Amino acid sequence: MTRSVDTWLLPDGVADVLPAEAARLEALRRRLLDRFAAWGYQLVFPPLMEYLDSLLTGSGHDLDLMTFKITDQISGRMMGVRADMTPQVARLDAHCLPVDGPARYCYAGTILNTRPVGLAASRCPVQIGAELYGSADVAADIEVLRLMLDTLALAGCRELHLDLGHVGIFGGLAQRAGLSADEETRLFDIYQRKAVAELREFLTARPLPDDLQAQFEGLLRLAGPASVLSAARELLAGTSADIDDALAALDAVATALTTSHPGVTLYFDLTELRGYHYHTGLVFAAYTPGARTELAKGGRYDHVGEAFGRARPATGFSADLKSLLAYFTHDAGTALIVAPAGEDAALLAAITRLRSAGETVRQLLPGEAAPATGRHLVAQAGQWIVMPS
Amino acid sequence: MTRSVDTWLLPDGVADVLPAEAARLEALRRRLLDRFAAWGYQLVFPPLMEYLDSLLTGSGHDLDLMTFKITDQISGRMMGVRADMTPQVARLDAHCLPVDGPARYCYAGTILNTRPVGLAASRCPVQIGAELYGSADVAADIEVLRLMLDTLALAGCRELHLDLGHVGIFGGLAQRAGLSADEETRLFDIYQRKAVAELREFLTARPLPDDLQAQFEGLLRLAGPASVLSAARELLAGTSADIDDALAALDAVATALTTSHPGVTLYFDLTELRGYHYHTGLVFAAYTPGARTELAKGGRYDHVGEAFGRARPATGFSADLKSLLAYFTHDAGTALIVAPAGEDAALLAAITRLRSAGETVRQLLPGEAAPATGRHLVAQAGQWIVMPS
Repeated sequence: MTRSVDTWLLPDGVADVLPAEAARLEALRRRLLDRFAAWGYQLVFPPLMEYLDSLLTGSGHDLDLMTFKITDQISGRMMGVRADMTPQVARLDAHCLPVDGPARYCYAGTILNTRPVGLAASRCPVQIGAELYGSADVAADIEVLRLMLDTLALAGCRELHLDLGHVGIFGGLAQRAGLSADEETRLFDIYQRKAVAELREFLTARPLPDDLQAQFEGLLRLAGPASVLSAARELLAGTSADIDDALAALDAVATALTTSHPGVTLYFDLTELRGYHYHTGLVFAAYTPGARTELAKGGRYDHVGEAFGRARPATGFSADLKSLLAYFTHDAGTALIVAPAGEDAALLAAITRLRSAGETVRQLLPGEAAPATGRHLVAQAGQWIVMPS
Repeated sequence: MTRSVDTWLLPDGVADVLPAEAARLEALRRRLLDRFAAWGYQLVFPPLMEYLDSLLTGSGHDLDLMTFKITDQISGRMMGVRADMTPQVARLDAHCLPVDGPARYCYAGTILNTRPVGLAASRCPVQIGAELYGSADVAADIEVLRLMLDTLALAGCRELHLDLGHVGIFGGLAQRAGLSADEETRLFDIYQRKAVAELREFLTARPLPDDLQAQFEGLLRLAGPASVLSAARELLAGTSADIDDALAALDAVATALTTSHPGVTLYFDLTELRGYHYHTGLVFAAYTPGARTELAKGGRYDHVGEAFGRARPATGFSADLKSLLAYFTHDAGTALIVAPAGEDAALLAAITRLRSAGETVRQLLPGEAAPATGRHLVAQAGQWIVMPS
């Protein structure tokens, strides 16, 4: 019988996870959640849907476009199917779990995206992540970064590259220059495209002091290994307290990670401002050679709880479990034992015993063919015993 | 600081799962999926959304009303967020995994319902279930029933009551009486309400042979323990091959479960036709005293794959993991170890060692208060050791 494996039945970016892959996905999920727990992060499961207001809180326009909208037939209000779990966990921290000191949460769950993010990306990723609330100390960023690197190593990712930036440096310079919100957005866009000529044009069109001009221009060159941080200090130190704090945070992260994760390549880029409108401090993303997009990303977003009435310092990271699966090698569980059909009491008791002991036992149905190889449960001298293949 | 636990932020029937409960939910999920695996059921994860056509296949109007509709921005086609995973697994069996003999699948995942099912029900249940395709033998129904009872016992449900029916008996009589589809629906409705007077009226208004009249009337009395099956045979045996098959299936189930699950109360009801338009054979539901709705339910639905081009015999069951959680008692994991803040290399190494050994270690952040009780990691004579509380 020829039958094609039909993917045409499913929408673009939507896929089934079939048995072999599903077992690996489940194993990876458990391994990572167990590790989060070992670090003292408490598991939470926010709901798959909630009112759009709370889902999109503090997140900006992009998340709005990524979120499927549905109408609540009970209240008539607009709900969304979450496209990101981070705002949900912020709501939990602000409202449901009002701990005063630091609080650590982790989560795993399916999210839906209206459009794929990047090439060949899933529209049903399984988002997994960890968030640390209540500490503005750089030690919190370092803890989260280490947990992220630990997570990726556990998933089997090798040759990790970590991109690090800090939105406080660009933000501090923009503030010093007295840029309007529009100008700041335009300049931000210029940096993202690393458009040197456009940057010069933008700067010369404005009456900025020479040192600030030089700082804006110099920022574009501040990309590379930890050694760029001393160049950054030379160019920027003393400009403002915010910028000094940002430089100190980057230094502390560089020192801590060089010590604890000497195998990870650190790359600093002071104009890499992913999620600038969302993040408030350190931003980071982990890559591995050959991957199209980042493996995991995160950063500090101290204002996230504000809309929920409780602005707490916050830092965290997230990843797509399905993407990580490509790196994960997992031994399939125990080999199958095949048992014959029938209602024999001793047979049924033997099957129950084996299953309780962790074995996988398939009892054949009448007419079901036994696989030629593998272990079998057979009766010998009145005893049911497992015969090796 | 007083702060209320706000549930008003979430829509009706939508709730967060907070840490203590989330840990139990995760533990129950793992325990049940592991047991499904031990029975030879392969895990699959169908996607959270897909085209509405495939989601609603063979399922009837009720599921349509329960399903949130969303527009696919890529194809312009209508999609749905699944309200039931059973049709998805049927699609997998028909299209993606064309096994010729029996195939066993299990699944766990969040579903969304437009409206709560029953009082105080969640609109974001976590559906968990198992399906057995490719065998029309009653041994397949028995296997699925035993797995369901085993699942509920593992979840901590005690005093189980199992309601059993078979749509083939009502169906066989309706066919013999030559009822139109409309008449059949009306009669079905009368039986669901156990409306004796209406039944008499319905029957006397039609020119039915005396024995068929008596059978339709007698059906209403066929509800009770396994002993009703002999009364059923007296009333119905020899009426049609379908009815004889149905009676034989109920007999086989009664014998098998009485032997393997003597503690479970069996209740047969030949007019209990849950999912009549969907099911094709045995139907069942498990209850426990004090619960508002069934703990788990299922049945045979041999036509489910038809719309996907492959009608295979099928039987299975499903339950809501969140509802089962009420019965599940679970020991919280290892007690927390609290470690001091800092970057001391020996301290970090000790923390890593403990976490890898399965311990939960929270490293304090600068300014984070240590809990007064519990185990602590402390330095003594140059060694980091765990001090009991």
